[in-house]
Amino acid sequence: METLSQTRCFEGSLGYYRHDAETTNCAMRFSAFVPAQAATGPVPVLWWLSGLTCTEDNFTVKAGAYRKAAELGLMIVAPDTSPRGDSVPDDSGYDLGQGAGFYVDATREPWAENFQMYSYITAELPGVVLAGFPADPDAQGICGHSMGGHGALTLALQNPDRYRSLSAFAPIAAPTECPWGQKALGAYLGNDRESWQRYDASALMTAAGDRSAYPEILVDQGAADEFLEGQLMPERFAAACRGSGQELRLRLHEGYDHSYFFIATFIDDHLQHHADILWSAA
Amino acid sequence: METLSQTRCFEGSLGYYRHDAETTNCAMRFSAFVPAQAATGPVPVLWWLSGLTCTEDNFTVKAGAYRKAAELGLMIVAPDTSPRGDSVPDDSGYDLGQGAGFYVDATREPWAENFQMYSYITAELPGVVLAGFPADPDAQGICGHSMGGHGALTLALQNPDRYRSLSAFAPIAAPTECPWGQKALGAYLGNDRESWQRYDASALMTAAGDRSAYPEILVDQGAADEFLEGQLMPERFAAACRGSGQELRLRLHEGYDHSYFFIATFIDDHLQHHADILWSAA
Repeated sequence: METLSQTRCFEGSLGYYRHDAETTNCAMRFSAFVPAQAATGPVPVLWWLSGLTCTEDNFTVKAGAYRKAAELGLMIVAPDTSPRGDSVPDDSGYDLGQGAGFYVDATREPWAENFQMYSYITAELPGVVLAGFPADPDAQGICGHSMGGHGALTLALQNPDRYRSLSAFAPIAAPTECPWGQKALGAYLGNDRESWQRYDASALMTAAGDRSAYPEILVDQGAADEFLEGQLMPERFAAACRGSGQELRLRLHEGYDHSYFFIATFIDDHLQHHADILWSAA
Repeated sequence: METLSQTRCFEGSLGYYRHDAETTNCAMRFSAFVPAQAATGPVPVLWWLSGLTCTEDNFTVKAGAYRKAAELGLMIVAPDTSPRGDSVPDDSGYDLGQGAGFYVDATREPWAENFQMYSYITAELPGVVLAGFPADPDAQGICGHSMGGHGALTLALQNPDRYRSLSAFAPIAAPTECPWGQKALGAYLGNDRESWQRYDASALMTAAGDRSAYPEILVDQGAADEFLEGQLMPERFAAACRGSGQELRLRLHEGYDHSYFFIATFIDDHLQHHADILWSAA
């Protein structure tokens, strides 16, 4: 792991890092905020997954999250959203290829060799981070925005023991039913829709059985979000939660759109949500 | 004035705007955060001046300022740092020309026709903003970073009745004595160093006479800032303040650098500083 930069930030440190990843077969970058509390012992770690077109930089500079994270003693890791580089396949659309990994393990060419973001985020990157930082492996939470909200929900539902706290901003909540998801899942996994199910938060929640013992999931959604009806469909996830007894706090915010100004407005509530659960687990 | 975008943010609004400016002879952009409190009457307005290479976007997305501004009922306007466009002169260096207006009125060619940032920020833009937004003309403060810190200090010292509250992050505090300032002032104003004096905060403070009746000035500086000794020289400004009886709170922060992560860490203190003075003036 190579340190690209490190900056003091709210009495903690904010760094950018790069490492050669086996799962994605290329160099990957991430940012990590480490709060001052980590000097005296391991701290809970929140994984932040970003949306379409984003890199490790968007959340890091735009969300305004580190004041509250410093107060709560939360480490936050923000990975890139896909493999990247000249040797990595790409597509001319913003919603497929580089910047659009969708947090799946691709099985189709030309994507399969690099687009293994599910394995990268759930296995390889945690190995790197837990070895290199004072993060508590028993206190991990996950959150994300849009495509990254989809990633947070689907990764947490597939790994309920790893991710103890879960929240999302404007997630793509039923990707098998919307154009963004159908395009990406079709390209990365092929036309067998059965193989898409493990990457659909609403389908996973329906299949999960009784989730009444799990902590509440927090989802924030802007009511003026241009993608709300056509791409995001949080009501499908809410229905699935009701069916599985999963406690869900879905908040619809009048006037807010899909931007990082929406995220910045409500990020403190999410950090508090995760800290409340994770410090109890730590 | 044209509205480029408007987004709900912390129950207020964050917008990007463009207007044709006479002083700079080109279209200029700025961002404005308007807090919810403006719905019931005029609010104080803080002018934020950015540093070298920045546009109206850097502070807007990176500073994490709007949570506190919303709480305090402060409007914040972030202008661009220079005239821009294909018809505007430029230089190959990052520290001269577009992105490096230095908040002066240029008198030399090829700069004089567009690089009138002093007049633009102190006269033309306030006219546009005060006509278009619920900002209280009697409650204006100014703040900035690096080249913009220089701008904030020099504009406020030249216009003590307009800007009632003043603060800066890592300002270029004695530009006539450092390479950045000498290059810019020489290019924009020519070699007559007498003409540079009105754009040097330390010189202005020395020439100001008794400033003991003015509110405290807040300046934050990172001790790990790579530009501290060679370019910024806050100790010269501090000495000038002592000479003029100006109350100055200069804070040196161990480990902090010149980045927006430094600004984000301490921006709330600056907003509180301005709000305390401006709401009393309002």
